[in-house]
Parts: sequence; C-alpha cells; structure tokens
Amino acid sequence: MGEKIYSYKQIFDFTRAVFVKIGCSEKDADISTKVLLSADLRGVDSHGVARLSGYVRLWEAKRANTSPTLSIIHETPSTAVVDGDGGLGLVVAPFAMQIAIDKAKKVGTGWVSVQNSNHFGIAGYHAMMALEHDMIGIAMTNASPLVAPTFSIERLLGTNPICVAVPAGEEPPFVADLATTTAANGKLEILQRKNKNAPTGWIQDKDGNISTNPHELKSGGALLPLGGDREHGSHKGYALGAVVDIFSAILSGANYGPWVPPFPAYVPMPDEMPGKGIGHFFGAMRIDAFRPANDFKINMDKWIRRFRSAKTVEGEEQVLIPGDPEREMETDRFRNGIPLLRAVAEDLRFLGEKLGIGFSAGIN
Amino acid sequence: MGEKIYSYKQIFDFTRAVFVKIGCSEKDADISTKVLLSADLRGVDSHGVARLSGYVRLWEAKRANTSPTLSIIHETPSTAVVDGDGGLGLVVAPFAMQIAIDKAKKVGTGWVSVQNSNHFGIAGYHAMMALEHDMIGIAMTNASPLVAPTFSIERLLGTNPICVAVPAGEEPPFVADLATTTAANGKLEILQRKNKNAPTGWIQDKDGNISTNPHELKSGGALLPLGGDREHGSHKGYALGAVVDIFSAILSGANYGPWVPPFPAYVPMPDEMPGKGIGHFFGAMRIDAFRPANDFKINMDKWIRRFRSAKTVEGEEQVLIPGDPEREMETDRFRNGIPLLRAVAEDLRFLGEKLGIGFSAGIN
Repeated sequence: MGEKIYSYKQIFDFTRAVFVKIGCSEKDADISTKVLLSADLRGVDSHGVARLSGYVRLWEAKRANTSPTLSIIHETPSTAVVDGDGGLGLVVAPFAMQIAIDKAKKVGTGWVSVQNSNHFGIAGYHAMMALEHDMIGIAMTNASPLVAPTFSIERLLGTNPICVAVPAGEEPPFVADLATTTAANGKLEILQRKNKNAPTGWIQDKDGNISTNPHELKSGGALLPLGGDREHGSHKGYALGAVVDIFSAILSGANYGPWVPPFPAYVPMPDEMPGKGIGHFFGAMRIDAFRPANDFKINMDKWIRRFRSAKTVEGEEQVLIPGDPEREMETDRFRNGIPLLRAVAEDLRFLGEKLGIGFSAGIN
Repeated sequence: MGEKIYSYKQIFDFTRAVFVKIGCSEKDADISTKVLLSADLRGVDSHGVARLSGYVRLWEAKRANTSPTLSIIHETPSTAVVDGDGGLGLVVAPFAMQIAIDKAKKVGTGWVSVQNSNHFGIAGYHAMMALEHDMIGIAMTNASPLVAPTFSIERLLGTNPICVAVPAGEEPPFVADLATTTAANGKLEILQRKNKNAPTGWIQDKDGNISTNPHELKSGGALLPLGGDREHGSHKGYALGAVVDIFSAILSGANYGPWVPPFPAYVPMPDEMPGKGIGHFFGAMRIDAFRPANDFKINMDKWIRRFRSAKTVEGEEQVLIPGDPEREMETDRFRNGIPLLRAVAEDLRFLGEKLGIGFSAGIN
C-alpha cells in the first residue's frame, strides 16, 4: 500500500482537465476541482480526488449532468429551494451556499434546501464560504443509505454529515465537520485496505450483531450512528442523521432515507424515487445580525484559547479545537504536496488514458 | 426508593402557587409551570418538578429575577437577541421562541439568541411551539459545566441539549431532543440513587480515566461527550456541544464554557463572567417557505412509516421515531398521573411548608 506525493497543482490541473473533458464549463470545472481537492488538502482522502473516476462513471451512466441549469424554484426573503438539475454537487452546493450568504446580507440569515443534486464533496468547503463574510456557515447533505438506525438491521440513512463554521478574531475559525456516524466510511475503507479490525461500535453485521469486520458492509452489514449502541446514545446519532435527511431532502423535494441514489454508478438506482436526486441544506447567519462582529470575535477567541489551554489527560498534548487538525493538514499539503495511494494514482492514470488527458508531470 | 403517583393537576396547582409565591405574575406562573411539568409528563424526570425547589433557591440567592422585563436588544428581519433580565428560563425561552415564530411568519425563518437567562426546562417544549404553525422548531441551551471535551480533564461544557421538532401529516411529529453527551445527567442521577454502576463511556474520573462510578462527578470527574472516547467519535459530541455553546452564548453575549453560572444555588458563581446569565438559541422555519406544507407532510409521513416498519434486530420490537417514547409517556402520565420519588415528594412538602402553600390533596 505504497503512496507517492503529488503537488496540489499537478492534481489540480489533471482534475480540472477531466471535468472539462466530461462537459463542464471552464468555470464549473474550476469550482468542482477546488471543492473536490479541498478534501485532499484537509486530509479527508476518501472524499477527494480518489472519487474523481466515480464522478466520471456517474456522468457515463447519465446519472450526473455536467451542464446543468441551476435555478431557484421557491423563495422567501430568508429561504430558497434550489433545483440542481442533476448537476454535480461540487457545482450545485457552492451555488446554493452563495444564495444563503446573499440572503443573510439582506435579512440577517439565509437557508437553502437543494433537490436534484449529486454528492457535494466535503461539507466543510461550503460552510466555510461564509467565513469571509463574517457569517456562521452551515452545510449538510444526505447520502446513499449505509447506516442502520438504532434497533434496525436495514440501512436507511447515509453518513449524513453536518458542518458548522464559525469565524473568530485572531484565532483561526472553528470548523466542526462531522459525519453523524461513529466513524466516517472513509475510515472503514482504510481498515479494509489494511485488513485490520474495526473497533466495536462502528459497524454491525447483516443481523444486527456487533462486528469488528470492516468488510461487513459488503455482506449486508451497516455503519452505526454516532453513539454506537442504545446504551451509548446511538439514538442521538440516529436522530441527528435523520434531521440532516429531513432538512436536505424532505424540505427540498429530493430523495430521502433508503431511496437516496447511490454514488457508485454500478449500484442500481432504487426501485422507488419519492423525490429528485440527493438533497443538501445550507445556512448562513450574519454575526452582526446578532451583535457587533468584533465583540463576537473577541469572545470567540477567548473561548478557543480557554479550551485549547485546558488541562489534558495524561499522554495527550492539547485539547483540540474543531478544525485544528484539518487546517494543519491543509497548510502542510498545500506546501508539500498530497500523498496518493498507489491504487488511487493508478486509477487516475487509467482515467487519464481513457479520456486522453496527458499527465506528463506526475501520475504514473 | 419508593414512589407515589400524583395527578398532573395536583402537581400543576402546587407548582403554580409556588411560582406566584416567589413573585411571578399569574401569567408567568402559568407558563413556568406548564414548561417545567412538560418534562415530568414526557418522562424527563430530572428536569421537571424535581427541580422546583432548585428554582426557588436560585430566587432566594437573588440569582433569578421573577419579575423580569424581557426585551429585544438587537434585531434584523430574521434574527433577534433577547435580554432575559435574569428571569427564569421557563419564562424567557417561550418569549424568545415566540419571536422566532413571528419572524418566520414574515420572512420565512426566525433565529433568536438569548442572554441573561436561567435554566429553561426541557428544550422539547420550546421547539415544539413551532409545530402548530406548520414550522420546524429548534431549541438549544448551554448549561453548567459538567462535561470534559475530548482529551480534557477539565469540565468546560454543559450537557448542552439540542431539540429539533418537525411536523408530519397523519403521523405524530418527529421530535429529537438530545443532550450532546453520551448520557444525560438525569440518567446518572438515577444510577447514583440506585448505587449502580454506569456503562463505560459515560463518565471519566478526575484524571480522565475511564470510570463506571456514577458518583465520580462529585470528586472532580466529568460527563463525556456523545461518542464517549476519541475512537468512538467523542470529538463529534464535543463539537456539537461547542456549537450549542457558541450559538446560545457567544452570539447573544451570555456566559459560555466554564463560566456558565451553576444551577445549584449553593455552588459559588464563577470568578469571571464574560457575559450575562446563561444563553439559549431558538429557530423557527416555516415549511411553506420551502415547499407547500401538504407536500412536505405527505413525504414526512412516508419517511416515518418507512423507518418505523424497518426490520429490527432480534429482541427489539420496532425502530422508534425520535419523540415516540416521550409522546407515549406524555399521554399515559397526563391521564394516569405522574410518579414522584419519595425524596422528591418530601422535598416538595418541605417547600410547601416553608412557603405556606397547602397541598391538601396530595404531597405528604
């Protein structure tokens, strides 16, 4: 399981060329690439360029529209519903988040629910768009059903992540970006590749028994909601994942629960589709719609410093602020390059050959 | 640990008389009682009438103002900040939630952050105020520091609950009401009274070691964020509790983190107070600001029915919808009465004697 390091620019140029090749406009290819690679930069390797050929396969299967007409189908001063026209979530999500931000400028907050979209990369990118406007940003999305609610052996929810990004003053922003499961699917994939056991509380087998076998999902098992089991609060993780599903899809008219279309193009579409595509939900709250931004930031800095300087349990250096690890990773990888697993690099090389995109500088 | 059953009306009349005795207006006594006892009805015994003498002690210690002047100190079309004037959260919270609802009527959504308040009972009551208006309701609050963030041995957060209430059509509403910890403090109190061990993942001792001793909090231990430990996602529970703290207190100008004033009046106030009182946050989103309420409800019913009919793990009857257990309890207790532990009934009898409130019909 070797890996090789590629510069951000190398991967960016290749990815951008792929998006153009499958029909994205220059502008859409730019934003798609930026969003997708923000995952690699921030260390969420499962959601970055490793998924590029997955997006291409969605396009090949005619399940993703690379030249969508995005539109607002309903709105009020503080809300909107966006129809993504089957577009890449990487394009649809920033469009919708920008509407939330524009509404927040006018009436204090903006809330946008999205139907008819596809996977949008990492929630963090979209929520963080609010930061430069001195706003709190919120992003969430539903996803293919992999998660069994408490007491269920059926998979009815996706890993349904929530991100909340909060600006600070001298301190870097607070960015909580979390799947509503014990562990994100990407972490399980790493264990699968390494053939290592998972901790208990991450997955169950097809009959709902506790399992530590990371391959369980391939034989009818399921990821577990944050909490793991009832005694440890899995009904709370389930409830949070459900809220994400409702805000993203029932408010917008997208598919929900077990009917969310799968990301892998080889998985058949659900028999029944109560809505259109997958759903997202975005929010932006202008800080000074509540109090002067400067007062807020002074207190946010104080909050961050107090938590960061808390006395730690033995063996741990520091209490982390949500977003700390991803930000450090981002700085490092932007400067020093992004490591890609050999299997991922190989997959990209095939993709480049298929689409006739040279990648002279690197992936080989 | 015997218990005795009292009718809702008995407890209501007694509680209402207590609130009037300590200076609440008739109207405020009504609403305070209704909010407080909604916890007993819904089975959240730790947050109901068992806390009545705690509220009285806060008033005796001049830490709660029973005749507050509630005011909006800043607003935009979709937001407001409310100053609770040191009032009972039981009164301040419905006032603030009503503002959120009124704003949602006008511009689609309303978001209200509250400073200078006290404990508000259960989040569920306030969020559920939105339901009759065909709105989604959201309520959260910060609370006295009892929870150690991941890697910390210091208690820096409260159990910081979040409630999201969503209307349905023919089905009863979806009401997710959850502390952002593995287990609510009330559950720990039950184990303390029964002298039973807690499951691992609920608490740590003063040095941050795993503990199953439910009395650990009295000797410097802490509750753990939802997830329990890092491997099981405690950084996510910590992040959610932090978001509640930020929305409730840093947006409003209330106290936050370790500086939140304690509920028990015998615990000294923090040395430093960066804000005023404790903080809450409320939201209301009009369904038809997104799509016709009827379309939403049809799909919400479909969601609920699909989840409720999912295949269960052996030994479990049904997958529950958030809010199911509390609603069943509410129906039962409203009809058949509320069981009070002997210790709680005893405490209320003392309180009645002290305040000269006869409770002829019952508590003795």
